[in-house]
Parts: sequence; C-alpha cells; structure tokens
Amino acid sequence: MPTPTATVQSATTDSPTDVRAVLAEHSAAHAARDVARLLALYAPDAASFTLAPPLQQGPDTPYGTPEGLQGWFDTFDGPVEIAYLDPTVVTSGDVAFVHCLTQMSATPSGSEDSFSFWMRSTFGLRRIDGRWLLVHRHESVPFHMDGSFRAATELQP
Amino acid sequence: MPTPTATVQSATTDSPTDVRAVLAEHSAAHAARDVARLLALYAPDAASFTLAPPLQQGPDTPYGTPEGLQGWFDTFDGPVEIAYLDPTVVTSGDVAFVHCLTQMSATPSGSEDSFSFWMRSTFGLRRIDGRWLLVHRHESVPFHMDGSFRAATELQP
Repeated sequence: MPTPTATVQSATTDSPTDVRAVLAEHSAAHAARDVARLLALYAPDAASFTLAPPLQQGPDTPYGTPEGLQGWFDTFDGPVEIAYLDPTVVTSGDVAFVHCLTQMSATPSGSEDSFSFWMRSTFGLRRIDGRWLLVHRHESVPFHMDGSFRAATELQP
Repeated sequence: MPTPTATVQSATTDSPTDVRAVLAEHSAAHAARDVARLLALYAPDAASFTLAPPLQQGPDTPYGTPEGLQGWFDTFDGPVEIAYLDPTVVTSGDVAFVHCLTQMSATPSGSEDSFSFWMRSTFGLRRIDGRWLLVHRHESVPFHMDGSFRAATELQP
C-alpha cells in the first residue's frame, strides 16, 4: 500500500502552498475533532457530498450542521485520522480544485478496535478576500456492481 | 422531484458557456453510447473516480479503457440518459470545476424495464490550447450508515 504523504503536485505555480495548507488544516481539525476549526475552512454556502446520505448535506441534514458534525465526532474515541495521498492540486487565479485518494482511520467510542479504509476526495476552492475557502467537498467509495450494491470499503490504492 | 435543466450558475463570468458545452457533450456522448466521442472530452491523464470499483479508473481497470467503456455501453438497450441538475460552474482563468446532482436513466440489454437513480457529480477542467478538457471526474452515491453498507441509490434531490 502506498504511504500517504503531504506531497502536492500542482498544474500551475499559483498559490499551491496555500491550498495545501487548507488540506493540512482539514486533517488537523479532524484529528482534534474540532467542529469550529473544521467549518472555518468552508464558505457558508459550500456544497458538501459526503459518505453518508442524503445526496447533499445542508442546514437541514444530519451532517450539515455543527451539532450534527459534533455528534459524528463524538462517535469516536481519540483522533479521526484523515491522510491525503499525493493530492493533485490544480489552480488558476482565484479557483482551485484538488483530488486524491484518502485514508481515514478512527476508533469507535467504546470499541477496542480501530478501523481504516480508503475513499476518494475532491475539493473545490475559491480565494475570497485573499483567503482560500472550501466551496465544494465530495467524498465517496464506489459500490460493487455484482448485484449486492455493497459499498466498496475494502479497496486499496 | 426537481426537473433537471441545463441552467448553469457561474461564480465568475469567465467562459461558463464553454464549460457548459462540455457537460452537454458529455450527456450527448452517453445518449449515443459513443466511446470515442466521450473520451474526446477528457485529457489523456484524467483522474476518474466512478460508481464502480476500483477507487480510480486507469489503463488497467475495467472502465478505464475504451474497450471497457464500450462493454459497459453495450450492457444497455437504447440511450444512456445523463441529466445534470442545475450545475454550479466555478471558473477562473484556465481552470474550472463543476458540481451537481445527476440523474441517470437507462434500460439494461434484454430488459423490458428501465432504471433511474440520482448520483453526485464533480468535474475538474483545464483549458488546454484554448479548449476545455476534463482532467477529473468524480461520481458517487453515498452509502447507508446503518451497518448494511448498502449504496444509497434510492435518494432524491
């Protein structure tokens, strides 16, 4: 299995470091299970497609509110570890997008066992008032086309 | 259920029409089940996260080759209908990304019944030699967090 790293490949030389800093902070906010720190990275109207239903999170959905996110963080003991594997960062002017495979590892509250799986991540960013903010987040795993419709959480890069 | 439309909301005024044309052609290539027409929209090294495993499609994966895509198209009778619902198009200079909910409808070969479901779509584009090309595609459905791990193909916008 490849080892997740912080390497960033940029198609342009326009501010890739700042976009990478957003990703690093996104990981750090998960590790700290800090909702306010996480949401500070997002524009207020960001469109969020998460692993959990519904199709899009919003102010009226389980993971679209600070309380919902805190509830989700509270289902774990210790850090929620999010590692981005060689993110590809594409930037031009005040717009950027990032895509990569991502490993998430965590321990459910009260459990002795941690779990770890790989997903796909895409982020869209805009530089607003000089600051890069996430305006779009898309995380997923594929599903098996064998009739089971089972989410493919066992895949490796 | 909202009706899919071709409306595009752009965060900037930089070439949204051209990006929209890529989406329209992407739909048309599916409707025609035309692999060459579809792949003509993509940069050669595009990173593709599809509904089906593996995590990322490539030259050595089932849906990462022209033959694989043709085989997939051949599993359907008639057009593969892809309708993008109110895509949000964000552009700056030579980079753009698009996200929306997407309805796919098709009829399996030999079946009397069609199926239809909603997914999430994100595309990343670069303008190369004056032409917008897809360099990233991410399509997914969420999965149920009830222990079933079942792909949520029944969701509506």
